[in-house]
Amino acid sequence: EVGDGNINFVYIVEGPKGALVVKQALPYVRVVGESWPMTLDRIFFETLALRQQHALAPGLVPEVHFFSRPSAVIVMEYVAPPAIVLRKGLVAGRTYPLLAAHMSDFLAQTLFGTSLIAINTEVHRDRVAEFCGNVEMCRLTEQVIFTEPYVIATNNRWTAPQLDADAAALREDNELKLAVARLKAKFMERAQALLHGDLHTGSVMVTADRTVVIDPEFGFYGPMGFDVGALIANLLLAYLSQDGHATAENNREDAKKWILQCIVDTWQQFEAKFLALWNDKSKAVGDAYPAAVFNSAPLLAAAQQAFMRELLEDSLGYAGAKMIRRIVGIAHVEDMESIADADVRAACERRALNLGKRLVKESSSFKSITDVVAAAQASA
Amino acid sequence: EVGDGNINFVYIVEGPKGALVVKQALPYVRVVGESWPMTLDRIFFETLALRQQHALAPGLVPEVHFFSRPSAVIVMEYVAPPAIVLRKGLVAGRTYPLLAAHMSDFLAQTLFGTSLIAINTEVHRDRVAEFCGNVEMCRLTEQVIFTEPYVIATNNRWTAPQLDADAAALREDNELKLAVARLKAKFMERAQALLHGDLHTGSVMVTADRTVVIDPEFGFYGPMGFDVGALIANLLLAYLSQDGHATAENNREDAKKWILQCIVDTWQQFEAKFLALWNDKSKAVGDAYPAAVFNSAPLLAAAQQAFMRELLEDSLGYAGAKMIRRIVGIAHVEDMESIADADVRAACERRALNLGKRLVKESSSFKSITDVVAAAQASA
Ligand SMILES: Nc1ncnc2c1ncn2[C@@H]1O[C@H](COP(=O)(O)OP(=O)(O)O)[C@@H](O)[C@H]1O
Ligand SMILES: Nc1ncnc2c1ncn2[C@@H]1O[C@H](COP(=O)(O)OP(=O)(O)O)[C@@H](O)[C@H]1O
Ligand SMILES: [Mg+2]
Ligand SMILES: [Mg+2]
Ligand SMILES: [Mg+2]
Ligand SMILES: [Mg+2]
Ligand SMILES: [Mg+2]
Repeated sequence: EVGDGNINFVYIVEGPKGALVVKQALPYVRVVGESWPMTLDRIFFETLALRQQHALAPGLVPEVHFFSRPSAVIVMEYVAPPAIVLRKGLVAGRTYPLLAAHMSDFLAQTLFGTSLIAINTEVHRDRVAEFCGNVEMCRLTEQVIFTEPYVIATNNRWTAPQLDADAAALREDNELKLAVARLKAKFMERAQALLHGDLHTGSVMVTADRTVVIDPEFGFYGPMGFDVGALIANLLLAYLSQDGHATAENNREDAKKWILQCIVDTWQQFEAKFLALWNDKSKAVGDAYPAAVFNSAPLLAAAQQAFMRELLEDSLGYAGAKMIRRIVGIAHVEDMESIADADVRAACERRALNLGKRLVKESSSFKSITDVVAAAQASA
Repeated sequence: EVGDGNINFVYIVEGPKGALVVKQALPYVRVVGESWPMTLDRIFFETLALRQQHALAPGLVPEVHFFSRPSAVIVMEYVAPPAIVLRKGLVAGRTYPLLAAHMSDFLAQTLFGTSLIAINTEVHRDRVAEFCGNVEMCRLTEQVIFTEPYVIATNNRWTAPQLDADAAALREDNELKLAVARLKAKFMERAQALLHGDLHTGSVMVTADRTVVIDPEFGFYGPMGFDVGALIANLLLAYLSQDGHATAENNREDAKKWILQCIVDTWQQFEAKFLALWNDKSKAVGDAYPAAVFNSAPLLAAAQQAFMRELLEDSLGYAGAKMIRRIVGIAHVEDMESIADADVRAACERRALNLGKRLVKESSSFKSITDVVAAAQASA
């Protein structure tokens, strides 16, 4: 058993011809136990999402070899060492020069390829209907990301007493709560593309030359910015945690610089790749932007610009919400948790919380991704 | 057979104990014939929507007594004379003092009651999934409202040659096409509430004291503004057609004044009723705005204000798109069609077209519904 995840069991099965991964869901949350039941349906939707994403981004998603719904088991490609979970690499201060290229590919291919820019309305509504069945996982996301950080909830925890006042302030911040409600409604209502649904740095396995996105058990049709924002949020958390890991031998300045550049590159390459797909007349055959209507280059460019502007805004809003919940909600990140000194940790966490709040409240005032990394650098 | 609709067959069946209506779908569009096939599923979704809307707004929707999916037949309450179709009353210059009260009730009850303000996420996604099955009707809407008016399409027609240049201008109006694309994407992606889906004045039957909303065969989960906008659009079309029906005996000034007031009253009463439902703690039990988060009166009021602001904007955008398509698209309205003199008709239609364009392009610049009726009055 190698599962370091919180929810399911993951086994490596080795044979003479090689190794495979067996992932099994049990009807409860692994780290909590039977007292927190959780639907087995999630592994069915994980399989659907893995297959769809593998079809769209083959090298970047493990291949599913076998799925059994009765046993709640997926047999999939084993992503062998030296691959490790990206979050662990980031905590260790490592850098991955191809990460932005790979993740921007994954995002562009999976989000474009399941959107109404690429797909017709019949297929789209059919798939949306199917993924509505993953409602229990959506409900969990709604609860832990969009509700609990803003109320008193037994699930919540934070570095106390250092962040007590910061956590309390969230519950009184009406401007923040209004912006979060808007993000939540869009999450619940807008079926823009098939999302991974849990695209943090623990769902990405990396080596120097390969990147694999695993664990889409929260997959559903939602707003694209939710996936893009998840990745940005977790890279920002990694960045803001680096000072807590700095030592005399490694002040982490190189890692910090690389993470910020990776955020910029990921967004910019994602945007370029997404638009390249959209500009490919053999691929942009969906019903949302028919060629007959978008019949001139300036018109199409204007539509694309408006689309990307809104997507950046959504992404920053969701990124902010995800940063906040990782500091005061149920599930924290190893990037921060592994900072032993509570005062040092709280200082890093406070920067993350404050940047998260800004991203949520001022998502429309960031004109570009470089503004965002500038704000991260300047944050205190 | 009494059906004056374009799509289905409607029979009155009289017996000793009273009369019932039998509505039957055939697998094609009635006015066109077998050359335009259309799914029988629509009458299944009409039944689902009628039952749901009847449960929420009992007096305002016919009761379904029987439904047979194999025969594609609904047996429902007969809305007896003197009730007539609202559009016919408006063309005749009649006024209905209770119309705004009734329609605002229908809209508030059905839209609020099927939204995530009232409903939890499990039930919502379940219903959304079911109504995804009405995709063929959604596809038709997408085609005739959001696409064809902006391209050269054999379905399109208009009063020619008077409106030739106006119709051609739509295809060159990039600002308009961008705004329409935004409305279309929201229509395709955002499952905000169960919509009637075809809420024009031909789907409403009226007497002086009763109003009944029929024919939700285009029902699906979509953005609330699509229903609100449909009604506003058709009332504006009625208003702008009155000059074409003016005679020496009846200059239609009273009808015009009443229609504009009806638009204002419908929106304002809808808003008040929707917010009253939202303020009722026994009714606002959905997952989108949990009481634990919205725990102060000013915060809830701010959320409601933002919600209503966006809903008005959506409604005006959809209203504009619907006005445009009724002038240059496949399906016209009797309000205009029955103006015999083509020059007079074209003059009325041009005003409708221009107002529709403004509503689409400038939906966010109208600060209130009274601004909209002022624009209608001033339109030329
Ligand atoms: N295909 C795979 N190849 C190699 N290791 C894997 C694979 N899938 C999962 N793992 C390992 O198991 C861990 C947990 O898997 P994950 O799918 O994230 O489960 P959970 O849903 O419990 O989070 C991963 O962090 C990774 O270390
Ligand atoms: N329940 C009813 N009671 C009385 N008349 C009805 C009823 N339902 C439909 N009608 C009449 O039949 C016409 C067509 O019905 P409708 O449901 O609008 O069919 P279609 O889908 O073909 O437009 C209506 O305009 C109205 O005149
Ligand atoms: Mg995992
Ligand atoms: Mg998981
Ligand atoms: Mg912590
Ligand atoms: Mg009808
Ligand atoms: Mg009909």
